[in-house]
Amino acid sequence: MVEKELEANQVKVHLGQPIDRIEKYAKGLRVICPGLQLDGDMVLVAVGVQPSSELAENAGLALGPGKSIAVDRMLRTSNPDIFAAGDCADAYHVVTEQKTWIPLALRANRAGWAVADNVVGGKVELQGVAGTAVFKVFDLEVARTGLSVEEARKAGFEPAEVVIQSRTRAHNHPGSSVISVQLVGDKKTGRLLGAQMVGKEGAAHRINAPAVALHAKMSVEEFGQSDLAYAPPFGPSWDPLLTAANQLVKAL
Amino acid sequence: MVEKELEANQVKVHLGQPIDRIEKYAKGLRVICPGLQLDGDMVLVAVGVQPSSELAENAGLALGPGKSIAVDRMLRTSNPDIFAAGDCADAYHVVTEQKTWIPLALRANRAGWAVADNVVGGKVELQGVAGTAVFKVFDLEVARTGLSVEEARKAGFEPAEVVIQSRTRAHNHPGSSVISVQLVGDKKTGRLLGAQMVGKEGAAHRINAPAVALHAKMSVEEFGQSDLAYAPPFGPSWDPLLTAANQLVKAL
Repeated sequence: MVEKELEANQVKVHLGQPIDRIEKYAKGLRVICPGLQLDGDMVLVAVGVQPSSELAENAGLALGPGKSIAVDRMLRTSNPDIFAAGDCADAYHVVTEQKTWIPLALRANRAGWAVADNVVGGKVELQGVAGTAVFKVFDLEVARTGLSVEEARKAGFEPAEVVIQSRTRAHNHPGSSVISVQLVGDKKTGRLLGAQMVGKEGAAHRINAPAVALHAKMSVEEFGQSDLAYAPPFGPSWDPLLTAANQLVKAL
Repeated sequence: MVEKELEANQVKVHLGQPIDRIEKYAKGLRVICPGLQLDGDMVLVAVGVQPSSELAENAGLALGPGKSIAVDRMLRTSNPDIFAAGDCADAYHVVTEQKTWIPLALRANRAGWAVADNVVGGKVELQGVAGTAVFKVFDLEVARTGLSVEEARKAGFEPAEVVIQSRTRAHNHPGSSVISVQLVGDKKTGRLLGAQMVGKEGAAHRINAPAVALHAKMSVEEFGQSDLAYAPPFGPSWDPLLTAANQLVKAL
């Protein structure tokens, strides 16, 4: 869906292309791949991020996933007199209860406040992260929280998933468009493990409902009984998340 | 805020006006109040709703709040061979665990499905309602879930509330506007009791996060640790709900 939105906005997507080199030429920059050549004014290189943990590593502190700085729920490193917060530090994942490294703004900010409290004698403990993230690509909202099927399998769950399509507004309401919901649950326990949503409206803020459900370790059935909001401008009477949960209960 | 939005759209609001009578006149209808006269093409009378429970009452079935039809979690009336579902039937409130009558579409629909299952031998039990409701008034989204301060007090809680104002998008993001959040918590237990939100965007779907928290009986502090979504087009890095929760923790 994201790729279609990009293409509809004149962005060509070339996946799985190794890049041989980038050259200057008269009019700008040229990206040279085997069998493909792309000319442009500017080249943006986006190849992910890495934690800036050299200082911690050189000081002998324990490292976590992806070479992030390992911290406990009070943000203490392996040396209890040294705290770490920000995109460089790891966190507990509320679904797996294992360490994870998901460098996002809210956690970094929240951890900073917690460290400030704890260095002056406070006892603030952070629950952890659900991996909730949203972005906008042209007119599309893309949202996720918790685990994908693959992540769930790696974490030892026995995941089942459903993908449903519903509407962003009540039927016949002007401006209604398609919203897609993927929900992942655990066959062994019935627990909700993750959610993904894509749509032109209502996906970004809706993801917060399953995010809270992950913190509460709700089952898919319990989440499916949630009293979510309904009014014609905002969705069908069964919120798309509930429709997905009902389907996932059957799949589980 | 709702009244201001109405007035900004040329709707005059006259509160606390008894109506003496409504008369036909040459150009339409005239509403006559003491010291006030309103002429219009049409008069809409919106004075609330009442459950259609005469049949149940005449059959000797127990009635619930507001003369709704009393049902248990399996939607059985006081006669276990008779089920009731829809806007006419009551429900358990997930915050108070007491009976309530909040006639809204999702509950009515969900109860109908549950009755269909149960009359053929199913054992579907519904958790209850949180009283989640949203509406749109011109460009404003208005949302609520759970208990207001007054409702919380009546239900035996010792409520504290905060009202905060935040932004619907990250600072400096084009199109950002004010969003107001009220959260209600219980001083005795720290529990989250209710939420209200008003804003031009992001209020309707955001209310589902505290709604799920009410189902999970979360404390304000637990809810305040939720990993809610952040991206500049959708809010500040601390979601307005989290800012309100942080303030309410202090107030509690």
